[in-house]
Amino acid sequence: MAEKQNMLIAQSGGPSSAINASITGAIARGMASTKIDNVLGAVNGMQGFLERKIINISEQMKTSEDFDLLIHTPAHALGSSRYKIKGDDEGTYTKIIEILKDYNIKYFFYNGGNDSMDTVNKLADYLRQAGEDIVAVGIPKTIDNDLELTDHTPGFGSAARYVATSVAELYLDTCVYPLPACTIVEIMGRNAGWLTAASALARETGLPAPHLIYLPEVDFDPAAFIHEVQTVMETDRQILIAASEGIHTKDGNYLSDTGAAEDMFGHKTLGGAATVLERLVKDNVKVPGLKTRAIQFSTLQRAAAHCASLTDLEESYQCGYRAVEAAVNGMSDIMITITRISDVPYVVRYDVGQLDDIANKEKKVPPGWIIKNGTDVSEEMLVYLRPLVTGDTTELLSEGLPRFFRFNLHRVVTPRDVK
Amino acid sequence: MAEKQNMLIAQSGGPSSAINASITGAIARGMASTKIDNVLGAVNGMQGFLERKIINISEQMKTSEDFDLLIHTPAHALGSSRYKIKGDDEGTYTKIIEILKDYNIKYFFYNGGNDSMDTVNKLADYLRQAGEDIVAVGIPKTIDNDLELTDHTPGFGSAARYVATSVAELYLDTCVYPLPACTIVEIMGRNAGWLTAASALARETGLPAPHLIYLPEVDFDPAAFIHEVQTVMETDRQILIAASEGIHTKDGNYLSDTGAAEDMFGHKTLGGAATVLERLVKDNVKVPGLKTRAIQFSTLQRAAAHCASLTDLEESYQCGYRAVEAAVNGMSDIMITITRISDVPYVVRYDVGQLDDIANKEKKVPPGWIIKNGTDVSEEMLVYLRPLVTGDTTELLSEGLPRFFRFNLHRVVTPRDVK
Repeated sequence: MAEKQNMLIAQSGGPSSAINASITGAIARGMASTKIDNVLGAVNGMQGFLERKIINISEQMKTSEDFDLLIHTPAHALGSSRYKIKGDDEGTYTKIIEILKDYNIKYFFYNGGNDSMDTVNKLADYLRQAGEDIVAVGIPKTIDNDLELTDHTPGFGSAARYVATSVAELYLDTCVYPLPACTIVEIMGRNAGWLTAASALARETGLPAPHLIYLPEVDFDPAAFIHEVQTVMETDRQILIAASEGIHTKDGNYLSDTGAAEDMFGHKTLGGAATVLERLVKDNVKVPGLKTRAIQFSTLQRAAAHCASLTDLEESYQCGYRAVEAAVNGMSDIMITITRISDVPYVVRYDVGQLDDIANKEKKVPPGWIIKNGTDVSEEMLVYLRPLVTGDTTELLSEGLPRFFRFNLHRVVTPRDVK
Repeated sequence: MAEKQNMLIAQSGGPSSAINASITGAIARGMASTKIDNVLGAVNGMQGFLERKIINISEQMKTSEDFDLLIHTPAHALGSSRYKIKGDDEGTYTKIIEILKDYNIKYFFYNGGNDSMDTVNKLADYLRQAGEDIVAVGIPKTIDNDLELTDHTPGFGSAARYVATSVAELYLDTCVYPLPACTIVEIMGRNAGWLTAASALARETGLPAPHLIYLPEVDFDPAAFIHEVQTVMETDRQILIAASEGIHTKDGNYLSDTGAAEDMFGHKTLGGAATVLERLVKDNVKVPGLKTRAIQFSTLQRAAAHCASLTDLEESYQCGYRAVEAAVNGMSDIMITITRISDVPYVVRYDVGQLDDIANKEKKVPPGWIIKNGTDVSEEMLVYLRPLVTGDTTELLSEGLPRFFRFNLHRVVTPRDVK
């Protein structure tokens, strides 16, 4: 039997409520493996790895409560980076391999979105071509739900639950005065409208909101928008509109781009897409006494661990757990994927996807799932979304407030410490 | 024994997550009373009452699940209004009494903030002077926590829990990249800083955020602010600032007022106080590569029933329940108050306060509880706040999403229906 070697995990891209559930699964599986000695973590992704900012997770996580808390802690516990590896940057690859060998790392895991999968892919290719006996595996993560091959992505379900819950609550708030009111909610997703589409789940609570839904997959037409709002308000005096931050006109101008807003409507508008829509409604929709309010969920939608979906946390954990399992079984250059077996009852299977088929690609909402002239989503979309937000989390609270697990990111180890 | 008479409840002012817990308590006590026949509700407060928009709650709430759901439904289930009664408006009082008599109403309850208590107060005075055997009682409600005589107000604890939880989560989000970052969160409370102060509870989770707290009780000094941010960032690369929407300069100009922002900083700024602070930081704080982000909690903080405090919901329920109890025992012109007996263990008692001492008054944060040159709150404040956010709610979910109780506000009844 070969001598035990180390594994290393790093995180990249934007935050989510479930990202640490994934590394918890990976850490748990790594610590249990007879093939793995120390579970190491790189601080701030590949950027920190290249600066040898490496901590020994095996030493920092001691109790089962640490694991429970890490699952429910939002935003990269190991820190993130936006570092992009270049395909032909020989020097960087040489440096990566040098550090991997110095730290006796045989298993490298990268937890992130499509950019991050590109990094793992390039690294795995290089390792194979160089004949190195080191494996590199991706663990999916993104609230945007835009990764190919996987039915959905870890982190999406929790963000979707937050969006649907908050849209329902905000609609009730919109209705309290006997006055016409229009609330416009801006939701993340620059190029893919999955999370904005999830606002439609608010209707599962019995409310009519959102009344209109605008995704970035459809070109935005200001004149049509004004007409649609005007029409909806003829029957409903109080409405809520869900719009993606990434909505743009046919010529590619994002509404959130100040310049575009200025050109299109003749005056300068600061703020995001919702603010531009708010101005469009105020200036053009003819409803006496109409009160319009723009709300941005901002980073709340990717950080609100208190509203996480239990299904999402469990699946995120499994993706990390199975990534380590695949790696110790000799697989490399892959990402764990989720395959849906059935909607009701909801059953999934975990598979592996080749990184070549995932890296740098974006899965968008299928055109057939966008209905009513680009202002709503179809029943297929709802069937797809429903199981992803289920399950209330059982986060550990202290006197009504959340508790978190935080690594000591300054306790960096040397190769000698983990040999 | 006198013939049974009806009670009527109405809601007013701004929404909260706990406002319907109060009417649930009142409705439960009313339905159980041998002195009360029908429990009626006015739609959209005094405004709807004067238009005889009255529903029969006794007919609409049937099961114990209806009561459970109403407790956890945010924002006035009966609708609200901003109607203000005038002291000398003889015609309006005559009309109110006429409607009360028409509907055989002996007990009138108004659930709201200080403006609403003024309405109940004036009505109760008038009823007494007119020799009418009708009682009017107030049930407190406001996330601003600015009512006199009561230790705190129903609705405040839930909003405080949402603010503290979200601030902690947003701070973790602020820390993920290896870059200096400054997140500025704007919190409701135009004149009283209680809810902004509650952001300090985020530190109970072990995090250093918020690093600076700005309340409307202290005049805002832009130069001092820039210096404070600069100083804090010398030790912490990633910080979070909590600011009240109501912060204003010494001469009374609100930062959220576009004009004020323009005068003060020489360029036009749209948006609230946080946006003005964001610009101040961007233009003046010298930290290379600093990323600054303004976040408004907007109406989320008063509608997020999914993050309500169980303590708050229970107390809100009790305030409604005891208001009806006081009224059937012959009391009028009062509001139910909460008196704190001890902090640890947390024990409260319910009392009654005279509306004259509450109406139109605002309770502000005591100067002694604001420390560090107006940038933080004291340990006394934390001792005061801690018990109010305790207890996770047990809201009824369906497939991970909230469920609500909604009255049919169109099923208006006539006096004959409830005689």
